Amino acid sequence: MDTIAQLRRDAETIYRRAIEAVNPKTAIRSHVELRGQKLVCDGKILNLDEFKHIYLVGAGKAGAAMAAAMEDLLGARLTAGLVVVKYGHLAPVKKTAIIEAGHPLPDHNGVEGARKLAALVEQAGEDDLVICLISGGGSALLPLPAAGLTLEEKQQTTQALLSCGADITEINAIRKHLSRLKGGQLARLAAPAATISLILSDVIGDPLDSIASGPTVGDPTTFEQCLNIIDKYRLVETLPPAIMDHLRQGASGSIAETPKPGDPLFSRVSNHIIASNRQAVEAAADKARELGYHPLILSTFIEGETREIARMHAAIAREIHHSGNPLPSPACVISGGETTVTITGSGLGGRNQEFALAAAFDLAGLADTVILSIGTDGTDGPTDAAGAIVDGQTIERARTLGLDPRTYLDNNDAYHFFSPLNDLLITGPTNTNVMDIRLILTGKANKAG
Amino acid sequence: MDTIAQLRRDAETIYRRAIEAVNPKTAIRSHVELRGQKLVCDGKILNLDEFKHIYLVGAGKAGAAMAAAMEDLLGARLTAGLVVVKYGHLAPVKKTAIIEAGHPLPDHNGVEGARKLAALVEQAGEDDLVICLISGGGSALLPLPAAGLTLEEKQQTTQALLSCGADITEINAIRKHLSRLKGGQLARLAAPAATISLILSDVIGDPLDSIASGPTVGDPTTFEQCLNIIDKYRLVETLPPAIMDHLRQGASGSIAETPKPGDPLFSRVSNHIIASNRQAVEAAADKARELGYHPLILSTFIEGETREIARMHAAIAREIHHSGNPLPSPACVISGGETTVTITGSGLGGRNQEFALAAAFDLAGLADTVILSIGTDGTDGPTDAAGAIVDGQTIERARTLGLDPRTYLDNNDAYHFFSPLNDLLITGPTNTNVMDIRLILTGKANKAG
Repeated sequence: MDTIAQLRRDAETIYRRAIEAVNPKTAIRSHVELRGQKLVCDGKILNLDEFKHIYLVGAGKAGAAMAAAMEDLLGARLTAGLVVVKYGHLAPVKKTAIIEAGHPLPDHNGVEGARKLAALVEQAGEDDLVICLISGGGSALLPLPAAGLTLEEKQQTTQALLSCGADITEINAIRKHLSRLKGGQLARLAAPAATISLILSDVIGDPLDSIASGPTVGDPTTFEQCLNIIDKYRLVETLPPAIMDHLRQGASGSIAETPKPGDPLFSRVSNHIIASNRQAVEAAADKARELGYHPLILSTFIEGETREIARMHAAIAREIHHSGNPLPSPACVISGGETTVTITGSGLGGRNQEFALAAAFDLAGLADTVILSIGTDGTDGPTDAAGAIVDGQTIERARTLGLDPRTYLDNNDAYHFFSPLNDLLITGPTNTNVMDIRLILTGKANKAG
Repeated sequence: MDTIAQLRRDAETIYRRAIEAVNPKTAIRSHVELRGQKLVCDGKILNLDEFKHIYLVGAGKAGAAMAAAMEDLLGARLTAGLVVVKYGHLAPVKKTAIIEAGHPLPDHNGVEGARKLAALVEQAGEDDLVICLISGGGSALLPLPAAGLTLEEKQQTTQALLSCGADITEINAIRKHLSRLKGGQLARLAAPAATISLILSDVIGDPLDSIASGPTVGDPTTFEQCLNIIDKYRLVETLPPAIMDHLRQGASGSIAETPKPGDPLFSRVSNHIIASNRQAVEAAADKARELGYHPLILSTFIEGETREIARMHAAIAREIHHSGNPLPSPACVISGGETTVTITGSGLGGRNQEFALAAAFDLAGLADTVILSIGTDGTDGPTDAAGAIVDGQTIERARTLGLDPRTYLDNNDAYHFFSPLNDLLITGPTNTNVMDIRLILTGKANKAG
């Protein structure tokens, strides 16, 4: 097998292993176990004998798969369950009700699901346990407006905040204060029951209070701060009057604040990240080492404009080739996180496919090197591909087929570029989401795959 | 000393060492030596006894400093010399004439200098040696239009090519075919004399035929290709008629092609990179190791939009802090190359200062980490600074002083942001140029500086 063919095959083996490591079932099995009547999760021990009822609730794209894994573990101990998932993101469950709802745009199915979920946890008492399953998309899938507000008013608010340039921390502060579940309020509804949250992180740095807007985590932000943010962006006249009324009433003390970190209610709450981008890249590193590559994890914190970040990856590939820095071949450089594409064209693609296409230019002519980028959820943009793979011959092969690479990149049309080249990575939905993985593979590995 | 203060001091020690390593004098002394009557350069041996005359010529920002170092080495053996430098880039020389000229925009002083330089090398015979000193800016500083063309016509052509989106390889192909010196033609003028070129590289990847448009290097491009490029961008009607005439005559064979790689004339020509970005980053790595940091050279090939590349550097800093990847603290991550800034504001700054400001956002709050970016020529944009340095407190310190960091970044005004913070790096002109160096320093090093 020539080197490029082997590198491509090894790259596929490595990314499949990385995604497998953050599969909801794998994640739950590797972090949660039953020892007799004890449920053990990352050092936290819950004696199930002490609980009259055990409720399973959750929201997110991985919700159904996580519920199925927890059902397997709990068996007859489970009292009831309800998870809200994105349309089509199903898994075989027995006792848990699955409600499908809109994502990324919340819909009334989501509101209905959130209402039922709130009712379920509200009935839990001091002798009960609520197991909360959180994954990417959980925020949009649990859209329960605070009393007196509508979903539409919340959406208008989010839209106005996005357009005015508010940052994600500011937007989340306001969203939590317009919701009945976000910002620790799900845990407050569940109290005095004990709550354990199992979390698949799709946010850079795994900040507990941001993932799915932190429904079981103390919220450091206040109504007062929300009003200041709205002032700062001069949105007082823009936002729906009901929203402004609600926030002002909150600031004056007539609506309860979100529960703060350190609030006594959290003494019976524990939160656990059971899968994250770092776990995926670490699994990739292990597999790469096993295949004979020197692995190097660059960063799981990578954000920024996709095509520029791609250029920097290609620059590292070229340096490996020319000087053996930052590490000698055979090398596997791994990065994670999630970049963004500023769309200027009208083509079809996603950030991972665009990453691969942008990298191909600076990789052109380089021997024995491949670069791939893939979304761990198996979906890249509005396409059936999860990402794409390129090597030093990609640009030339495309030109031979009559494709002008620059035109496709300028039009954000990476899907139609890679499709005839057969360089799309297609996995189907993976039922998990820990953002993206990128690999640079160089040189001839010395072991069989 | 607190950790940040130590990191800042160590970062300064490291970048100063890196710049020192590519100083023209250091570069010449470490690559060229006299052994009796033999001039030895990277394995190439020239017996000076065999030459009747030795001429020193050159162009580039480092020209005067390189000439001074070569004069020291050659002493009375030198017959005569002439170098063209950017205004003010002087050094003490004895026999070498220095002509100051326009850069980056060529001017008529440059044309006059190039004409005299051409005359000097043209008189060199079979028993003579031409030592050619090439450094960044050499292309603009040697603007000798081919017979029948004016400097203005050449400039209009370059401008048209830049505006239509032609890439640098295409622009260089045409520039070489409109010149009397570029693309190996200086070496052809010097033939049958022997020629040795000592080159300070300011181009990513050190491609000999691109640095200063390769005056002593075979040119793989042709008049025919030039016409195709002009066709591709539909510039036939746009370019000055004299330019089109010249290229058409060249394609029809009535004007001599540039000398091609493998042309017998190059048998007496040798080209040597005596300083490059890689040497600078390697010197930085050595110094970092000496100070107790684990060094990691990321890449010397880094291009792309400055602020996005900065974000990726900050992402690596955060990963070191959180997981010890790609290497444990105390760490010194080093990168080179040269990024670009798409200017949308009206402020004052340069790519290195903008890099530091952009990195500061993603670094905010991170302990024990500094990031700096610096131009090895000591000049960053139209400012008296060479770059800037930031840490996890920079954004907060700026806000305390009433500076809004986002406003300064949006306005490309990094200079006025860093000036009151005292975080500009000011070296003065360094008389060299091997593009930029960036450093990430983390953790407490265990040795005294």
